[in-house]
Amino acid sequence: MVKVAAIFLSAALCLAGQSGGDGAPASSNVPGAQYPRVASDLRVTFRINAPDAQKVQIKPGGDGLGKTPYDMTRDANGIWSVTTPPAVPGFHYYFVLIDGFQTNDPQSETYFGYNQETSAVEIPDAAADFYLPKDVPHGEVSARWYFSKTTGQWRRIHIYTPPGYDSGRGRYPVLYLQHGSGENDTSWTKQGHVAFIMDNLIAAKSAVPMIIVMENGMVAAKPGAAPAQNGRPGNAAFEEVLINDLVPMIDAHYRTLADRDHRAIAGLSMGGGQALRIGLGHLDKFAYIGSFSGAIRGFDANTSYDGVFRDAAAFNRRVKLLWFGAGTAEEAMHNSARGAHDSLEKAGVKNVFHETPFAHEWQNWRYDLNDFAPRLFR
Amino acid sequence: MVKVAAIFLSAALCLAGQSGGDGAPASSNVPGAQYPRVASDLRVTFRINAPDAQKVQIKPGGDGLGKTPYDMTRDANGIWSVTTPPAVPGFHYYFVLIDGFQTNDPQSETYFGYNQETSAVEIPDAAADFYLPKDVPHGEVSARWYFSKTTGQWRRIHIYTPPGYDSGRGRYPVLYLQHGSGENDTSWTKQGHVAFIMDNLIAAKSAVPMIIVMENGMVAAKPGAAPAQNGRPGNAAFEEVLINDLVPMIDAHYRTLADRDHRAIAGLSMGGGQALRIGLGHLDKFAYIGSFSGAIRGFDANTSYDGVFRDAAAFNRRVKLLWFGAGTAEEAMHNSARGAHDSLEKAGVKNVFHETPFAHEWQNWRYDLNDFAPRLFR
Repeated sequence: MVKVAAIFLSAALCLAGQSGGDGAPASSNVPGAQYPRVASDLRVTFRINAPDAQKVQIKPGGDGLGKTPYDMTRDANGIWSVTTPPAVPGFHYYFVLIDGFQTNDPQSETYFGYNQETSAVEIPDAAADFYLPKDVPHGEVSARWYFSKTTGQWRRIHIYTPPGYDSGRGRYPVLYLQHGSGENDTSWTKQGHVAFIMDNLIAAKSAVPMIIVMENGMVAAKPGAAPAQNGRPGNAAFEEVLINDLVPMIDAHYRTLADRDHRAIAGLSMGGGQALRIGLGHLDKFAYIGSFSGAIRGFDANTSYDGVFRDAAAFNRRVKLLWFGAGTAEEAMHNSARGAHDSLEKAGVKNVFHETPFAHEWQNWRYDLNDFAPRLFR
Repeated sequence: MVKVAAIFLSAALCLAGQSGGDGAPASSNVPGAQYPRVASDLRVTFRINAPDAQKVQIKPGGDGLGKTPYDMTRDANGIWSVTTPPAVPGFHYYFVLIDGFQTNDPQSETYFGYNQETSAVEIPDAAADFYLPKDVPHGEVSARWYFSKTTGQWRRIHIYTPPGYDSGRGRYPVLYLQHGSGENDTSWTKQGHVAFIMDNLIAAKSAVPMIIVMENGMVAAKPGAAPAQNGRPGNAAFEEVLINDLVPMIDAHYRTLADRDHRAIAGLSMGGGQALRIGLGHLDKFAYIGSFSGAIRGFDANTSYDGVFRDAAAFNRRVKLLWFGAGTAEEAMHNSARGAHDSLEKAGVKNVFHETPFAHEWQNWRYDLNDFAPRLFR
């Protein structure tokens, strides 16, 4: 922590009073790349070396960097540049458009989003360091392959094991944590900083040590089924993969506490919808359920999710946590999550509604996890 | 193994007699992407949707896909395509040039190479399945962060732990395994398939179970030092990071056999040079040393590496394996490795020279590891 804070502090001092100045390379840049640069007022300057292109633009992915493409200006050497208005803190996908061709910025790291490897820029958040590496014991994120009978494939998961897992003998509760549409099993680690968030929470004793399992929720339909409309994988088979293949494999290979009281499921956006559907549909397996900006359509406390909420007292005895999160800058998600929360409150079903100021982007979900994880397995 | 072989077999049958036909999507494509496609004769068809571009090309990274850019042809809808001559089996980096701007193909996975995230295409190798997932016990590759006093940074490693590591109590030997210039700590996993290679070797009892540690060998010079000429990180500080920070951290955090007889170092290209320099310079710490297509300049058995080879008998008693690998299609590397081998043989220094038919590309190094790892810790 000391070192990291010192670096951020020195960057901040160095930029003080340089509003609109050249700033510092984004932490999401590849090593040595000087652009994109983030100024002290969070304006972002992009630069693209493309002398033979006719038109070059930066197209934001999420809302926090803006909503429409920025036209870049060419200098005499064929270097194109543009500076955006101040960006919202957090992680923003973006694309470079070279004569209309949508691609990556070679100067930025890529992250799996939009069903492909996509550039992103990280904007520092003066209000938060909970997702940055600190001088605390660190867990690990591991890639593991396993064979899924449901899909007939070797599939990869990423799994967070807390500090002390390897050297200890204890058993741990498990959170199944899913990404959004077009992302994959790497996203909570790369975009979400899940390991730093958990390391910091566990070190502060704000969360109990737990295992976190991250699968790829974009599960192609089973062999023989028609492909999804756009040729991309759908997510229809994920429930079967999770229940029939993944949970048994995790409980066989890891030192888990293998019962519903020590098993949680959560996810963001599409993954929030999956968490609600799978969690509420398998209360014999999950006692904690979280929807981070999940899509919830036409919610009715009497009929939604096969009427699981109808007997509020029974539900409250059985489910230890039902958690909804949404940002005020993602109006539709906010309204639907808030609406579900209010209906459930009225029906006497205990649940939590957590609000952030963010749009439908990863900063939202980092904050969500930081609120959700401490409530688990208490 | 059964399932994977069946998939490949069915693809092969499906393509039989379709030389030059449309083929199958490369395994390196993002899910659902139909291009690049690899035909049964290993010709590769690329397709890029860029209606407003004036010129679109595919530029090979390594030699196995060709040596010069391929001009693509535009159809009436603005889709550009080209089919290459038959490619060499294995992993080939490539770039898309959009009006001269060098970028990624959104349809392919990216891999860290050339100091940035770079597209690649995987060409099946009819002669080899040792680097594919099979129905054997699988180890894990974990990302771990640690603080380096040498660089004053939080640094990330990737580490392979063999099947049974988590559930057992035993201690294991350690191989430090490094990537090439412009790559990073993810490369042996993503490009190299290190986990599948080791899982398969260990299952066949061809290699002893071992831990494999992969750091980022592009270590920026120490704070205060002048930056490398091109603004990219150099590798000057890697030796200090490895010896002073990394080895002690690994021996503290993992169940290692923490002596020289159970410690190996190897690497490819730049990493091969690092393995020779660091390994031969620290024989108190390493008993096994491997250079996969490493750069070896002006080798002299009497004077190179501080004269470590001068007393051949002493060297032979101390070093359990000195291993050189090179491909016949990478002439300079082959000549220098072969030259070092011959000089050492003549001087009575025991060493192994291993030859592949490949160029300076990853297929070479997958084969190298498959020969090198079985010789360790016997």
